[in-house]
Amino acid sequence: MARVVVDVMLKPEILDPQGRAIVGAFGRLGVHGVADVRQGKRFEITLDGEPTDEVLADLHRMAEELLSNPVIESYALRVEQ
Amino acid sequence: MARVVVDVMLKPEILDPQGRAIVGAFGRLGVHGVADVRQGKRFEITLDGEPTDEVLADLHRMAEELLSNPVIESYALRVEQ
Repeated sequence: MARVVVDVMLKPEILDPQGRAIVGAFGRLGVHGVADVRQGKRFEITLDGEPTDEVLADLHRMAEELLSNPVIESYALRVEQ
Repeated sequence: MARVVVDVMLKPEILDPQGRAIVGAFGRLGVHGVADVRQGKRFEITLDGEPTDEVLADLHRMAEELLSNPVIESYALRVEQ
């Protein structure tokens, strides 16, 4: 069984208030040296079988249409063995 | 500037209703061959400087105390160049 990981992050030009809140919390908790934090989503997809071209094409479509909002987010998809 | 990535996922024994909903949606949208989906969080942390031992120790502490709930989640932290 193969595993596919899809990371979904806000596009760089989109403000990330959650990330800014985390930077602020780091500072209050005494953690310094952090310039920026961006928060996104991670999906771990376990396949029944091998990651064929057809399955990966389907998952790219799902990553774009279901798992992310392409107006404000971009995704990265990779197969992990 | 270095970048640290923290992935936070539900522990394997914790049910993931979001992931199950995605598996169901995949099936309705004609995507087959997916056994399971788990949804988690991804944090991209940009440092001001180098990832010193002190900074990484701080970030491990933050990953455990602030970015994850250790009762139900586990995290993985890695430095990306």
